[in-house]
Amino acid sequence: MSNKTKLIDPSHGLIRKCIKKPYAAGALSDLSFAVKDNIDLANCKTGNGNPCWEETHTKAVANAVCVDQLLTAGANCIGKTQLDELACSLLGMNEFYKNPINTKAPDRITGGSSSGSAAVVASGLVDFALGTDTSGSVRVPASNCGLWGYRPSHGLISTAGVIPMAPSFDTVGVFANNGQVLSKVLQVLLASVNTNSTTNLTINFLDDIFANCDFPIQQIMAPVINEITKVYPGQHVTYGKIVGEPIDSSWLAERAWPLIRSNLWSTHGSWIEENMSAFSPNVAYTFENISKRVKGGSRANIQGLLLETSRFARKVRHFLSNGNILCFPTTVDLAPKHKDILNDFFVSREYYLRTMGVTAISGVSRTPEITIPLVEYDGVPIGLSFIGGYADDLLLMDVCDSLKNIMGTELD
Amino acid sequence: MSNKTKLIDPSHGLIRKCIKKPYAAGALSDLSFAVKDNIDLANCKTGNGNPCWEETHTKAVANAVCVDQLLTAGANCIGKTQLDELACSLLGMNEFYKNPINTKAPDRITGGSSSGSAAVVASGLVDFALGTDTSGSVRVPASNCGLWGYRPSHGLISTAGVIPMAPSFDTVGVFANNGQVLSKVLQVLLASVNTNSTTNLTINFLDDIFANCDFPIQQIMAPVINEITKVYPGQHVTYGKIVGEPIDSSWLAERAWPLIRSNLWSTHGSWIEENMSAFSPNVAYTFENISKRVKGGSRANIQGLLLETSRFARKVRHFLSNGNILCFPTTVDLAPKHKDILNDFFVSREYYLRTMGVTAISGVSRTPEITIPLVEYDGVPIGLSFIGGYADDLLLMDVCDSLKNIMGTELD
Repeated sequence: MSNKTKLIDPSHGLIRKCIKKPYAAGALSDLSFAVKDNIDLANCKTGNGNPCWEETHTKAVANAVCVDQLLTAGANCIGKTQLDELACSLLGMNEFYKNPINTKAPDRITGGSSSGSAAVVASGLVDFALGTDTSGSVRVPASNCGLWGYRPSHGLISTAGVIPMAPSFDTVGVFANNGQVLSKVLQVLLASVNTNSTTNLTINFLDDIFANCDFPIQQIMAPVINEITKVYPGQHVTYGKIVGEPIDSSWLAERAWPLIRSNLWSTHGSWIEENMSAFSPNVAYTFENISKRVKGGSRANIQGLLLETSRFARKVRHFLSNGNILCFPTTVDLAPKHKDILNDFFVSREYYLRTMGVTAISGVSRTPEITIPLVEYDGVPIGLSFIGGYADDLLLMDVCDSLKNIMGTELD
Repeated sequence: MSNKTKLIDPSHGLIRKCIKKPYAAGALSDLSFAVKDNIDLANCKTGNGNPCWEETHTKAVANAVCVDQLLTAGANCIGKTQLDELACSLLGMNEFYKNPINTKAPDRITGGSSSGSAAVVASGLVDFALGTDTSGSVRVPASNCGLWGYRPSHGLISTAGVIPMAPSFDTVGVFANNGQVLSKVLQVLLASVNTNSTTNLTINFLDDIFANCDFPIQQIMAPVINEITKVYPGQHVTYGKIVGEPIDSSWLAERAWPLIRSNLWSTHGSWIEENMSAFSPNVAYTFENISKRVKGGSRANIQGLLLETSRFARKVRHFLSNGNILCFPTTVDLAPKHKDILNDFFVSREYYLRTMGVTAISGVSRTPEITIPLVEYDGVPIGLSFIGGYADDLLLMDVCDSLKNIMGTELD
């Protein structure tokens, strides 16, 4: 691979230099960005985090639509960033390449699968970066690396020219170092302008998630809630109130992950089965398991899972349609240390279930989520997430921007 | 190709027998269906309407998620149906295969690209069929062939295992002979139950479309409007009222088509450029033109088109969020005769612009649309369309079902 892929500086996240100049001056002039290597840049291979994928696919003939939007608005594209194999991980540990470093907590994982896009922003190489977020692949690394991270309302940002993974969940998201840059980028990608009408909103602290957090995160959150309620009316809510009945912490993950798996197999199952030897051992193990499940008839369960998650999604969207914003920690655990993941496969399994139990709220309900880099615990970044109503992405952006300004002065 | 593809009975729409038995008894037991050949059935090739596509792609390893939903609910799948090359047409005329017949008007086109799925329902071979609808590919053939046709709110029915074309516009839609069957299928695919709350609704007759219709369609519509207003409050509206300014009949088509083209090129541009000789002359001509435009820098226009269409979409969704239903003829022309299309390429160009000017309303605004087989003019079917608010698909279904019952008795 080394003669085909120029590894620019993988520890900073960039793996492929591929400069695309802006089409015109605009709102993003003077801003530079990079894109995850599952997003097309014209005349460039899209590697999808796996050497065999890169070898068996030809160059893209056009930029992804979202990239063309940014170039039209004046931004400069510098290249491609590292990701996990086929974007199928929340860890940011790709055995085929040197992995990006979490600059703020170097002994901990960046998170994935948009590991390089997080690192390239955290290291200051670019002003913002595009990632993809199917089940947390922007929000988790943003939280781990101390960045702003955004997952859009499903479908509102074009995925044309982005390798699909699980179409019902796939989104193009954004990393940035601050809310001002993120807001500018969102207005371009959503082809709209900010709403500036953050009145009559209530911030709802989702107690189920707070209660499930690791102790260090719980410890940090009490004063944060206090600060938020100085700006917006706030209240504590539970799943019981939102969806009509209590759900336990693994309920969502146990439904979202099989659905994503089914989507993935419909999207890439043929290619994966043909190229099973092309994956690293851990990834191959996961894919072999999915293949066995499909052959064992697991797909008859899809409708049951959809009935449950669709009901959940409708209740959440209804709750959010009346000026309610949901708020909770982006992940319930601090970013794991590399050595803990490498030494014990069960750490990552447990971590997955706990993390997807949180990231799947917006994933299943198709709503927008923004994670802001709240505070650090012993030097380790932690993100706080906000979810707004479907298509209320820019309103949510305004809320987060206003909160961050205040929290920054109080807590830094 | 003939030794690879069993042409079961192309004139009825079915091109590939591939039986999938239900996983269990359920709401769709005793109903049979077929799927457009850009939707995966496990262990079967997905031909995408082009012999070279079929040759260069392997068998699917899983059913599309939407197919598994139907099998779980008890429906029987009998096989695959004909479509236009890569689903890129509204005509239903694929030069590589014998085309399906419009049984109610055999001298006229079925419409496309879901030509076979329309024909297989119209000919009574199955109770319902899945198609895909990016810019009218379910609604146009449903209207032409005298069927119920449904395009969902964008993203609410899974497209996993369906070959993408233009992700921002792609949907999986349904054909049926009556509203009862369509309603049952929708409840399964949307993983929900009917709302039964069709109160406080207003039917809004979109005068811009009525005024732009061919004379025979205009002639038929006056008594129909009268019948509808006996059931629901009705009013006449214009684009001026909905989006704040008048737009002319080609405005939407002139924006939606370049956006779909850009999406298409991001999705399949590489494969198309490698296989340009694999297409029929008319399709190759279209693709060569798109390729030239991309190389000529047309993609710098994407953001301008998105700004205009996003604004239109927000205004339409806002209008529909208050119990308003839009109503207009599904197409502004009767299905063209085969000989007119074959003899004059400009007929199809003109027809496209006029048709997409109507079909792009829901396409751009991501809202659900149902076309019902209203009446026939001199034996030629004409559909009437209804658009509801985003995610209000089942409410819209109930409205259409109640209207059809009444109109059937009054006008048949």
